[in-house]
Amino acid sequence: MISKTVADEFRSIVGDDWYLDSPEDLATYSYDGFLPEFMPDAVIIPAGRDEISRLMQVANREKINIIPRGAGTNICGSSVAREGGMIIAFHRMNRILEIDPESMCAVVQPGVVNADLQKEVASYGLMYPPDPASMFVSTIGGNVALNAGGPRGVKYGVTRDYLLGLEVVLPTGEVIKTGGKTLKNVSGYDLTRLLCGSEGTLAIFTEIILRLVPLTPAKATLQAIFSDLDDAATTVSAIIGSGIVPTTLELIDKVILDVIGDYGGARFQKEAEALLLIEVDGEESLVESQGERIENFCKQRGAVSVERAGTPEEAEKLWQARRTAFGAVASLRPNCIVEDATVPVKRLPDIIRKIVELANKYRLKIGILAHAGDGNLHPLIMTDLRDEDEMRRVDRALEELYRAAIDMGGTLSGEHGIGIAKDRFMTMEFSQRAIDIMRGIKKVFDPNNILNPGSFL
Amino acid sequence: MISKTVADEFRSIVGDDWYLDSPEDLATYSYDGFLPEFMPDAVIIPAGRDEISRLMQVANREKINIIPRGAGTNICGSSVAREGGMIIAFHRMNRILEIDPESMCAVVQPGVVNADLQKEVASYGLMYPPDPASMFVSTIGGNVALNAGGPRGVKYGVTRDYLLGLEVVLPTGEVIKTGGKTLKNVSGYDLTRLLCGSEGTLAIFTEIILRLVPLTPAKATLQAIFSDLDDAATTVSAIIGSGIVPTTLELIDKVILDVIGDYGGARFQKEAEALLLIEVDGEESLVESQGERIENFCKQRGAVSVERAGTPEEAEKLWQARRTAFGAVASLRPNCIVEDATVPVKRLPDIIRKIVELANKYRLKIGILAHAGDGNLHPLIMTDLRDEDEMRRVDRALEELYRAAIDMGGTLSGEHGIGIAKDRFMTMEFSQRAIDIMRGIKKVFDPNNILNPGSFL
Repeated sequence: MISKTVADEFRSIVGDDWYLDSPEDLATYSYDGFLPEFMPDAVIIPAGRDEISRLMQVANREKINIIPRGAGTNICGSSVAREGGMIIAFHRMNRILEIDPESMCAVVQPGVVNADLQKEVASYGLMYPPDPASMFVSTIGGNVALNAGGPRGVKYGVTRDYLLGLEVVLPTGEVIKTGGKTLKNVSGYDLTRLLCGSEGTLAIFTEIILRLVPLTPAKATLQAIFSDLDDAATTVSAIIGSGIVPTTLELIDKVILDVIGDYGGARFQKEAEALLLIEVDGEESLVESQGERIENFCKQRGAVSVERAGTPEEAEKLWQARRTAFGAVASLRPNCIVEDATVPVKRLPDIIRKIVELANKYRLKIGILAHAGDGNLHPLIMTDLRDEDEMRRVDRALEELYRAAIDMGGTLSGEHGIGIAKDRFMTMEFSQRAIDIMRGIKKVFDPNNILNPGSFL
Repeated sequence: MISKTVADEFRSIVGDDWYLDSPEDLATYSYDGFLPEFMPDAVIIPAGRDEISRLMQVANREKINIIPRGAGTNICGSSVAREGGMIIAFHRMNRILEIDPESMCAVVQPGVVNADLQKEVASYGLMYPPDPASMFVSTIGGNVALNAGGPRGVKYGVTRDYLLGLEVVLPTGEVIKTGGKTLKNVSGYDLTRLLCGSEGTLAIFTEIILRLVPLTPAKATLQAIFSDLDDAATTVSAIIGSGIVPTTLELIDKVILDVIGDYGGARFQKEAEALLLIEVDGEESLVESQGERIENFCKQRGAVSVERAGTPEEAEKLWQARRTAFGAVASLRPNCIVEDATVPVKRLPDIIRKIVELANKYRLKIGILAHAGDGNLHPLIMTDLRDEDEMRRVDRALEELYRAAIDMGGTLSGEHGIGIAKDRFMTMEFSQRAIDIMRGIKKVFDPNNILNPGSFL
């Protein structure tokens, strides 16, 4: 709870209009892409760094929990007030401060929407590669806090690979800068990458410096249908192992293909057990030759059909199945749990077999969508949170899935984060000592544990 | 000092042959690529993780300083016993444990020499991109500890960009694992990248997981001579800004070109004020077209000559000047200080002008070598450490150089590290609060401050 005196202090910092505490406003910020709801005590929308610094001093003094939140699209529950407190929202800090095409970097405020930045830098012939599915609403600040990935990750990596520097407000209200505008920087400990993926638990970002790359002139988009899921999975590792680095290499299994068809999306041939969506980008000639090689790879490994887009419109059509998948799946049962356990690419066929086995064993409807090119799976568990028996089976299946992924050299989460969704599984991946070190780091930044407490540590 | 009882304890862990304390042996480990000498009390060469864990328990109990050291090629003094103590050397931990071409990663021990790994992975059609000048002797463990860069950094980034996971022994002797074999991993704080570049102050690496990329089939190598240093510098940012991502883009100024000629290396035309060495790699057709575009760029911006290598032998010849530079410069005066202040690429012409100005102002002989494509400068200060007056002028010039680089949005060090070479300048780049956070992190890992104390924090 925030007392009236303290609330007035917050109001005096940001102005009455930017401190919200009506039940309707609070409800809007009570959930994110993860399902459970937690009502915050207040929401504050500061204009910039100095206001954040002042409000953090109050929060730290009064030990009020602070939860920084971008668009709230994360699906691990890392932007909700699990233990009460005040949400900081960044709608007013949404300016692109600088685009420097010669040094190939951009400086932005945390509230800039990913797609807005993409569009703006494209007008300079540049690209900001990280493309989470949420990119049309999610913010750069949230992307950095979660170290967001996306389909282009196979070739281009994740948010961390494009983060050069930060200005942040510490939980104590102090401001520090890390990194800078250079590609190379080895001064001191790498606080920049430590803050990337820290899920709002260490500091509040107020300025973000990002690396940009040249926009590529051409791309080829292919869709291959397989009558055997295993053939599709081994084709993925064969392509990756062949020296081609695709931009995107997505896999969709029969469960989801059928749901898409029933939903009114594309209908695939009856024997379709898996679909691969493959994209390469680069110079025209390279894209042409790699497209041809990939087509042959798929055919050699038993694809029943391979289509290559000749125009951007045809490419968009091939993306349709992938883009429809989430909506289609959501229509089927009340809830859908999107998993993202990740394995080394070589183990992709093994983990896919494991998921099929778990679906049978625990009588669950699980479809598989995967950023297959980097071993980042998205099993979609179609379920009903109100069905206690089924939820117990889901929990046991998840536990077995994580165990299998980690045994294969993988991880609990490739790109979605830990948050409150997977915090109880951390000891599977990390020894107690490693977790203690993370807790020690948390304490160095946030001695009073006011920043997003209760999330993952 | 290490008492006889404790020394016997160390001997019992590794065996008599692997605990060294004769004056001759100690002298070998008393210096690294940075100049001052510090005699260690002992050198220990363990066989593996378990021995390291046991010896760290003893060191932590007895509060004996421990300095992990690869080949000692770093030039910031981060592998010497500045405050006494025992060096850990990794000659016996030099095995490549696994190369996994399908998941495109390798698992190695810290003592593996960079070039040995490069050679081994090439036989799988793969590449480990980081190529520090020291690669024929420096070890992967040292490369990770210093986050080593190299000429290929423009296109391929630095060691950090290829580090996927670590097994480390903490100063307390406990073992933890971070990261894994997957390209994507967002579980918990990113301890992997925090350890990268930590200069042996946080933990001792015992296993290292590295990302590999496909070996590119072709490359083009060009050399362009300019009669104006400024033209060369602006050509660099023009190439980078044009959308071409060269593998390598090196600049050498007239001071160094003359020294190379006098040393018996290549002689350049009298009007040569700067040389650019440019390499692109990739598919044959791409390399061909980009080589041509770069050639035109150089000519348009006033290059007096441009040579493009037609064969690997010709390419090697073009690299000759760059490879000869350090030897040539070393021959001129007793000492050479290799700097590596780094700026955003756009500011390259400005920082080069600043260096020329500082050389005049402080009557110093400074040549400029630069990984120009990523703004990473290597001013070579040819000097004599015994000349106190000159060293005072060197110090003042360095201070002004760092100030200028940081004011331009750059950093104290692009790839060489801080160590004991630049520790006194840290407050130029970081606020006291940021340094306190680094010290806090150090304490979380190393409560007794036994791991490489006196280096940079």
